[in-house]
Amino acid sequence: MPAGLEEAVREVSRERIRGASWAISTLARGLLEDLESGRTLDCDRASQVLRTTLPGMGSLEVLAEVVERLCNRPGELAEALRRLMDYVEEAGREAAERAAEFLSGAGAVSTVSFSRAVQLTILAARPRVVYVLESRPGGEGVAMARHLRQSGVNAVVLPDSAAGLAVSRSNAVVFGADAAGLDGCLRNKLGTLPLAASAAALGVEAVAVFESYKIVSRACVWEGVETRSYRVEGWGDVEYPVFEPIPLRLVSYIATELGGGRAGVEPLRLYRRLFLGEVLGGDV
Amino acid sequence: MPAGLEEAVREVSRERIRGASWAISTLARGLLEDLESGRTLDCDRASQVLRTTLPGMGSLEVLAEVVERLCNRPGELAEALRRLMDYVEEAGREAAERAAEFLSGAGAVSTVSFSRAVQLTILAARPRVVYVLESRPGGEGVAMARHLRQSGVNAVVLPDSAAGLAVSRSNAVVFGADAAGLDGCLRNKLGTLPLAASAAALGVEAVAVFESYKIVSRACVWEGVETRSYRVEGWGDVEYPVFEPIPLRLVSYIATELGGGRAGVEPLRLYRRLFLGEVLGGDV
Repeated sequence: MPAGLEEAVREVSRERIRGASWAISTLARGLLEDLESGRTLDCDRASQVLRTTLPGMGSLEVLAEVVERLCNRPGELAEALRRLMDYVEEAGREAAERAAEFLSGAGAVSTVSFSRAVQLTILAARPRVVYVLESRPGGEGVAMARHLRQSGVNAVVLPDSAAGLAVSRSNAVVFGADAAGLDGCLRNKLGTLPLAASAAALGVEAVAVFESYKIVSRACVWEGVETRSYRVEGWGDVEYPVFEPIPLRLVSYIATELGGGRAGVEPLRLYRRLFLGEVLGGDV
Repeated sequence: MPAGLEEAVREVSRERIRGASWAISTLARGLLEDLESGRTLDCDRASQVLRTTLPGMGSLEVLAEVVERLCNRPGELAEALRRLMDYVEEAGREAAERAAEFLSGAGAVSTVSFSRAVQLTILAARPRVVYVLESRPGGEGVAMARHLRQSGVNAVVLPDSAAGLAVSRSNAVVFGADAAGLDGCLRNKLGTLPLAASAAALGVEAVAVFESYKIVSRACVWEGVETRSYRVEGWGDVEYPVFEPIPLRLVSYIATELGGGRAGVEPLRLYRRLFLGEVLGGDV
């Protein structure tokens, strides 16, 4: 349980598995603790910290926006943060229920990385088998598969090079998003683009499930996202961006807590407006 | 240096890096040693051994065909095997020269796995940088990158999940083929399909370079190819097929020692006929 923003930032920076929803909740709680303890919030600093803690993670960019809009009204900001935390708690589940409808009847599904919304989607859709790409560097796919197996899902881990194999055995592909951009891309863990491209190449539908608090203005860029280091056996360390852009044209359906349907920028614009209205009150 | 077919088969079965050209030469030499020592060749057994040593590797399927056609004429078979070995020696280089023309002007190129023809192509085209996917399971990409670096090429290894990243940084993608099928697919190491699909999705041209002695009737299948076991950290062992089919529609250009141009089944049919004529003499 973090004590204030600074501690929350440290916790989020250390984390390697849990994703965007956990991060926005943790940081919102940290901010709220600061506000409730009566400390004065340094708005510029708070906003900058939120934008640089995990660059590329859309939920933190949206949280920074909320802070920037309400920073000179601490009471309203505290209220918005409370609404946001309640909202996050429920939104993933609702998005997952919607995504599960797009997967209904899919006997075999492929996915990549670890997303709580995808996990809930699979638990709701109950496919016969789920192929989870290992998702190196990081290996979040293994954590995902273990969680699924604990819930009685027949999960199978495959190496990342098997993205095409996984798709060829599946009726649908499903993945989450760390951000969704009004410029026409989703942003998700490195490895999502080859999976989505393989789905498009083999004519298998791809479903993206994410919450509307990840909708940002730009996601079609490779630059400016968190980078990490990966040790290649027999070679050495290489730098890689944690997130990558997936053009919406490679995605068949999007599902959020506010609605779902054919992938496109227009619904993203709508869900973003609705979400901000919900959290900020009338102040959109 | 193998002594006879049996020893050659053992050598090829143990090998984990060297590819189709080395395998066909090694096995052809083994067969020739048997023939030259005056042993009688058990045709059915030789053909079956060739077809099951590395199922999915086109060059061995073609070698089996040659053996089947000439088995009752040992003198002609020996002559054909000698012609084949000479042919293999030169063909990769010639295919690479042609492929390099398709890459001319490409400052950055991405590839996967280890192919001698691709290696020669890159040495001929001399791009500014070559992104090589690690190519797990097996990690042949690391061996490829080390060889390229030893030849002064600026090679960079990336994890397999970075297939989309590699393509986004490249002007072209180049890969080899373990088989090319008249049914409309190439067959290459697992991981080639996500790379080719990413190239198609991002509008980057893909060049496949291979020798005509890999052209077989069928390559659009996942079944019937060599499988191996891969240890996923934190999960356990999983089975994977070593090769996968890549639909020709994801490939922009093919380059062989006998010609090159837009990818398609018709040129494959032509190159196969020309190659068999060359090796078998008039007996096509």
